[in-house]
Amino acid sequence: MKKLFGLFVGLTLMLGCAQETDPLPSWNEGASKSAILDFVRRVTDPANPDFVPAPERIATFDNDGTLWTEQPMYVQLIFVIDRIRELAPGHPQWKTSQPFQAVLESQPNDAPALAAALATGGKQGLFELLFASHTGMTTDEFERIVTAWIATAEHPRFKRPFTDLVFQPMLELMAYLRANNFKVFIVSGGGIEFMRPWTERVYGVPPEQVVGSSVKTEFQLKDGKPVLVRIPKINFIDDKAGKPVGIHEHIGRRPILAFGNADADIQMIQWTKAGEGFRLGLFLRHTDAEREYAYDRKGHIGTLDEALDMAAAEGWIIVSMKDDWKRVYAWESVPE
Amino acid sequence: MKKLFGLFVGLTLMLGCAQETDPLPSWNEGASKSAILDFVRRVTDPANPDFVPAPERIATFDNDGTLWTEQPMYVQLIFVIDRIRELAPGHPQWKTSQPFQAVLESQPNDAPALAAALATGGKQGLFELLFASHTGMTTDEFERIVTAWIATAEHPRFKRPFTDLVFQPMLELMAYLRANNFKVFIVSGGGIEFMRPWTERVYGVPPEQVVGSSVKTEFQLKDGKPVLVRIPKINFIDDKAGKPVGIHEHIGRRPILAFGNADADIQMIQWTKAGEGFRLGLFLRHTDAEREYAYDRKGHIGTLDEALDMAAAEGWIIVSMKDDWKRVYAWESVPE
Repeated sequence: MKKLFGLFVGLTLMLGCAQETDPLPSWNEGASKSAILDFVRRVTDPANPDFVPAPERIATFDNDGTLWTEQPMYVQLIFVIDRIRELAPGHPQWKTSQPFQAVLESQPNDAPALAAALATGGKQGLFELLFASHTGMTTDEFERIVTAWIATAEHPRFKRPFTDLVFQPMLELMAYLRANNFKVFIVSGGGIEFMRPWTERVYGVPPEQVVGSSVKTEFQLKDGKPVLVRIPKINFIDDKAGKPVGIHEHIGRRPILAFGNADADIQMIQWTKAGEGFRLGLFLRHTDAEREYAYDRKGHIGTLDEALDMAAAEGWIIVSMKDDWKRVYAWESVPE
Repeated sequence: MKKLFGLFVGLTLMLGCAQETDPLPSWNEGASKSAILDFVRRVTDPANPDFVPAPERIATFDNDGTLWTEQPMYVQLIFVIDRIRELAPGHPQWKTSQPFQAVLESQPNDAPALAAALATGGKQGLFELLFASHTGMTTDEFERIVTAWIATAEHPRFKRPFTDLVFQPMLELMAYLRANNFKVFIVSGGGIEFMRPWTERVYGVPPEQVVGSSVKTEFQLKDGKPVLVRIPKINFIDDKAGKPVGIHEHIGRRPILAFGNADADIQMIQWTKAGEGFRLGLFLRHTDAEREYAYDRKGHIGTLDEALDMAAAEGWIIVSMKDDWKRVYAWESVPE
C-alpha cells in the first residue's frame, strides 16, 4: 500500500512537470500567439534547422506604444511639461517667451492643448523645452529627478502611475523570451536616461539593455568629484532609420526578433528581418478604444500606416490589441 | 567493509569540494592578487557591508595594453597599414599623395618607420588613413574584413596571431569575475567594430559588452536590402574623458571595478571609484621587457605617468607585470 502510494505521488509529480503551463496567459489563442510560440520553439531546438545559439538570441522592443501606453501623449512629454512648470519660478522670463509661455498657460490634463503648446516653436521650440527640462544637471541628479517623477505622476485617463500602464501581454512575452535565453533590449525613440531609472524594476530590462535618444554628456571634476554633466546638445536620435544605427552601436548584433507599433519602427523590423535565417518582426496595432486606445493610420503619434500596407509582403505580424490580448494591463479584471 | 569504503569515498568528495582551487593561478601571491580576491569576497558576500547585488557588479577593462599587447604599436594601426597596402592598387594616386605615400613606402615590420609614416599628416592625416581603411563598406563587410585579417596577421616580434598575445592573468580575472556574477565590459579607445568580431571568442566578452570609438553609420536600402554603411565621420572617441561618457551611454551604470594601463584610463578609474561603496581601480604597469615590454612614464603609446603619481593618494592599485604575473601569455612555459 505504502509502495503504491509512493508510485501514485511519483506519477502525479511527473504529470505535473510534463503538463505545459501557458507562457503567454494574457494572449488569446490565434495566429499571433502561435507565430510567437512556433518561432521560439524553432530557434531554441538544437535539432531544428532554424536553431540559433543562445548568445545570438537578441530581441528588441520599442517602448512607447509597444510596451506601455503612449496616448494621449508620450509620457516623456508630460514629464517635460511638469518639469517646465516646476522650474518656472526660477525663470520669470518664461512667462513672456515662447514656447515656455504656451506650456505654462496651458491647462494641465488638456492633452490637445498641451500638444499644441509643445508644438508652438516647431522642432526648435521642442528642443528648447527638452534642453530646459533635461539638461544642466549631472547624470546622477537627472536619475533622481526621473525616479521621483515617475513614482508620483499619474496618467490623465486612468489615474494611475504611468508604470501601471505597461502591457501585461508584453511583460509575459519578454519573460518568456528571457526564460528561453534571449537577451531582451528596449530600442526607443524616447530618452535613454528617461527610461533607465525604472526599466529594470518595471520590465526586467537592465540599464545596459536600453537603447534610446540622448543628449551629450561631459566629464567634469566638480569640487574634485568626477561627474557627467548633461549638456544641451543632441547626441543621438534613436528613431526611424536611427533605430538600426542605435542597435548596431549598442548591441553589435542583429536582433532575431523585433517588436514595434508604428511606422517609426519599420527600419528596425527591416534590419532584423534582413538577417540570415528565421526571424520575427511584429507590430502592435492599437485597436482597443475601450481598454486602451484605438489609432493607427491617422494617429497624431505612433502612426501605423505604411507598415500596414507593407506587412503582408514583408511577412510582418500585425498583433491586434483587441483580438489578440485577453487583457491589456495587469490590474484589469479578466472575464473568465 | 562496504560501508566503510562508502564513507571514505564520501569524505574524499567532501574534502575535494571544500578545497579551494586558485581562481587566479597565473597571478603571484602578493598585494595585487590579495586586493582582487578580497574585493570579490566582500562585494559578493550578502553578510558583508560592502555587498553589491549581482546586477550592479559591472567591471570595465581597457583593451590595448590591458588585455593584450599594444607594443610596438596599436594592433589596429597595423591593420590600417595592411589595409592601405591592400587597397593601394585601386588608388594609384596614393603613390604620390600623403599620408598614403609614406605608409606605402615604409618597410613592413619597421615599427618606428611605420609610426612615423602614420604621423605624416598629423591628426588629420591619421583620420584620412582611418577613413580610407575603415569606411565605405557595410558593417557586415567590415566585420568580414576584420575577421579575415585577425585570423592571419602576425605580431612582428612574437610571430604569432595578435589574439595569442592576450594576457593569461587577465583572462583568468575576467573569468573569475564572471563566475561571481559580474558583467564584464571592454571600454577601449580602439574601434568598437575592430574588436567585436573576436572579443567573444578570445575574451568571452560578447559584442554588446564592448564599448569603443566609432565612425558614423547610415541606414540604407541597397538593392532593396537594408544595410548599415560606414561613413567617413567620427561618431565617438572613447578615450580619456570620453571613457566615462562611453560607459554611461552604453552601460548606464557605474562600474564597481575598472582596470586600465595608461593615463588615458584615469577618468574611467576616477568615475568608477567615485561611486558609493567599495570599488576597485587598477592599472597594469608594463615592467617586463623580457616576457613582454617595459614602458610607463615615457612610453610613446600607453603612457603611464600621471596615474603613477596619483595612485597612492587615490587608492589605485598598480599591478606590476613582472612581479605580479607568473606568466604573461597562455602559451608561455611557466617555471615550476
